[in-house]
Amino acid sequence: MPATDLDQIVNLCKRRGFVYPSAEIYGGFRSSYDFGPLGSLMLRNVKNAWVRTMVQLRDDVVLIDASILSPPQVWEASGHLANFTDPLVDCTACKQRFREDHLTDPTTCPNCGKQGTFTAARAFNLMFKTHAGPVEGAGAEVYLRPETAQGMFINFANVLQTSRKKPPFGIAQVGKSFRNEITPGNFIFRTREFEQMELEFFVPPAEGPAWYRYWCDARLQWYIDHGIPADMLMLRDHDADELSHYSAGTADIEFRFPWGWGELEGVAQRTDYDLTQHAKHSGERLDYFDQSTNERYVPYVIEPAAGATRAMAAFLLAAYDEEEVNGEVRTVLRLHPRLSPYQVAVLPLSKKDTLTPLAREVYATLSQRYMCEYDETQAIGRRYRRQDEIGTPLCVTVDFDSLDDRAVTIRERDSMAQVRVPLTELAAAVAERLGF
Amino acid sequence: MPATDLDQIVNLCKRRGFVYPSAEIYGGFRSSYDFGPLGSLMLRNVKNAWVRTMVQLRDDVVLIDASILSPPQVWEASGHLANFTDPLVDCTACKQRFREDHLTDPTTCPNCGKQGTFTAARAFNLMFKTHAGPVEGAGAEVYLRPETAQGMFINFANVLQTSRKKPPFGIAQVGKSFRNEITPGNFIFRTREFEQMELEFFVPPAEGPAWYRYWCDARLQWYIDHGIPADMLMLRDHDADELSHYSAGTADIEFRFPWGWGELEGVAQRTDYDLTQHAKHSGERLDYFDQSTNERYVPYVIEPAAGATRAMAAFLLAAYDEEEVNGEVRTVLRLHPRLSPYQVAVLPLSKKDTLTPLAREVYATLSQRYMCEYDETQAIGRRYRRQDEIGTPLCVTVDFDSLDDRAVTIRERDSMAQVRVPLTELAAAVAERLGF
Repeated sequence: MPATDLDQIVNLCKRRGFVYPSAEIYGGFRSSYDFGPLGSLMLRNVKNAWVRTMVQLRDDVVLIDASILSPPQVWEASGHLANFTDPLVDCTACKQRFREDHLTDPTTCPNCGKQGTFTAARAFNLMFKTHAGPVEGAGAEVYLRPETAQGMFINFANVLQTSRKKPPFGIAQVGKSFRNEITPGNFIFRTREFEQMELEFFVPPAEGPAWYRYWCDARLQWYIDHGIPADMLMLRDHDADELSHYSAGTADIEFRFPWGWGELEGVAQRTDYDLTQHAKHSGERLDYFDQSTNERYVPYVIEPAAGATRAMAAFLLAAYDEEEVNGEVRTVLRLHPRLSPYQVAVLPLSKKDTLTPLAREVYATLSQRYMCEYDETQAIGRRYRRQDEIGTPLCVTVDFDSLDDRAVTIRERDSMAQVRVPLTELAAAVAERLGF
Repeated sequence: MPATDLDQIVNLCKRRGFVYPSAEIYGGFRSSYDFGPLGSLMLRNVKNAWVRTMVQLRDDVVLIDASILSPPQVWEASGHLANFTDPLVDCTACKQRFREDHLTDPTTCPNCGKQGTFTAARAFNLMFKTHAGPVEGAGAEVYLRPETAQGMFINFANVLQTSRKKPPFGIAQVGKSFRNEITPGNFIFRTREFEQMELEFFVPPAEGPAWYRYWCDARLQWYIDHGIPADMLMLRDHDADELSHYSAGTADIEFRFPWGWGELEGVAQRTDYDLTQHAKHSGERLDYFDQSTNERYVPYVIEPAAGATRAMAAFLLAAYDEEEVNGEVRTVLRLHPRLSPYQVAVLPLSKKDTLTPLAREVYATLSQRYMCEYDETQAIGRRYRRQDEIGTPLCVTVDFDSLDDRAVTIRERDSMAQVRVPLTELAAAVAERLGF
């Protein structure tokens, strides 16, 4: 039974060190979060799982890592300088500012209650602007990227030339993006600083529709493969009036959040819009010459663009479970083993010194391959529950018999089943149960 | 023979897709770089190797991932708002701006040649400033962090409470930092946007000096363990006049770059300065109560702070080699297998379709565990050289005999030795040679 209340996850995240409010000792920094010991490991695992599926397991996608700070020319060509805006109005009475499209009543100020006090709407750009170099002002402006995608488009020719890939092929990137959202919220779902996992997949124009369907299916399957039940996911086609002017079709992969369906990822057919725009603005040729057909064309782009931080929220919500075991409530995160912060917890049965050397040896061996926790405090039952709550799929317990029989107990999170395994077979047994 | 000329590496990086100038199609963005297909993999490997050594293989260090955007209170407490500055002077004749401490002649403008035209020096803060929320101006200012370290200090109490670690223990972080350097340069050595790998290690005050020596040695060894010859590294103690006012001792780990010795990492004894500053400014208690001695104290901090991007430059320079083989120059990157972009290249001997299914099968199997490249173009000798040049430690060649004897050839980058291995033993043979 996945979490039905966001607070279940928010509380667990705070209590166990997944997520802290940013700068909390200074009263926090609204809707901004830091990832603690468990959250940073899990977020890293989400990103690694994406890179594994999208880059490592296929030879038609390469990774890049482009700068966050980018000059205005990039955002002029992409259209972000002109169009990446929200409509804002000011209340002339109380001086508060609001998103016009979020006002339930366009004549009444939700802050001071006065009527008819709003200014005309003004386009507010969502990009963060700063200045590079010693002189502020014109010519020194740079922007924090609001998406990683443009990094792939402006490097298209460089990648084509140095990687010897040819369409259909993709350029992938994982990294921070920044949007000066007026209304961030819902925990780590919508934050001004967030992490994206984006692929720009370049194809011959005629293959656009087929690749679009391929990526819609493949990306939906990725969430299912990593533990989200299919009935908590939905592929929703955009209506015609939702589409960007350059899009030949977009679908959102949505997750059933406690507050309703919300977007995890968008899969868009961007046609040749981006390469054409950058070619026009830069004067560089951004196309592909197919030697086999003797044709030159601007590839079409299919873009599956996911949010790593909101994916993490979805994985946590879907994995959350409470069940009654022997009259007590057991809280368990049924996370995919690749996503859980730790894969293995090594637990000496007692804190007695006699068990420490062997338990340390087991920890040292398994740590070579997996992120492991070593915990020797409190009763073993409490330690199992603690690992259940943070999603550790396997516990390895070293007890007093282990010193004689050179065997340990593997305890599985989901079934709570325990099995005795000789030390010589431990690594293989762990790998088999984790699946890697 | 490591590279003696920076251009050897710059050219290789550009030619093979390790590093591109940022926004190159728009004329570039000075001293800013994007990491291409090979560079992004290698930079990721450098960071993963650091996390493996510093977090995964030890149970006294936890990872966090804090925000880049941080409110002014953090930087007021840390001293960055007041002191993180360079002294700048303007030439009143040509209006150019210079770092006063970099002028070889303090009376002559290096740009226009006029004399006595400089203004008095002005303190120029190196932090990038931007604004969060819909209103610019006071109260909305936020800064891009100039170091990851403060994220660990302001989360100290949260980590202590949720991770149940106690001193000596550490909080580690890997991530982007930003400094508005007036004089970036030397390729990826000094850039305005860069990636740090920092550890704040909290210890009982009396243990400070011993842990400082421990981390100096451990960090130096890390570079040696990952392939940099000891004679290209130096641990240099700071002179008394180089020390920050709060430091009880700092050493730099320096690398012999082509332009001279340069800092890879600083190991600093920061005493209780940071926690005390943040406790004072926030009003929160940032100390530790030791139940075994009934004592409350503010831990001392040892900080090994490394740059991921400059470490990558050092690994590339140290690994670069040119040697004569059969009358031709072979360029080879003798990278540690954990750092090379690809661990294995799978090469069907010819492009003939008969070899493709088996070669694809080998690629699919090895890709489960390693980042692999599949390459079926050009003569096998050229393909070996291409893998040598990008540092791939092992090539696996599928030839026509493979179809009959179900065996393939493993070719080692460094020795160029080749050995025939049955397919059933391939995974184990690769793991043994790579060491993981």
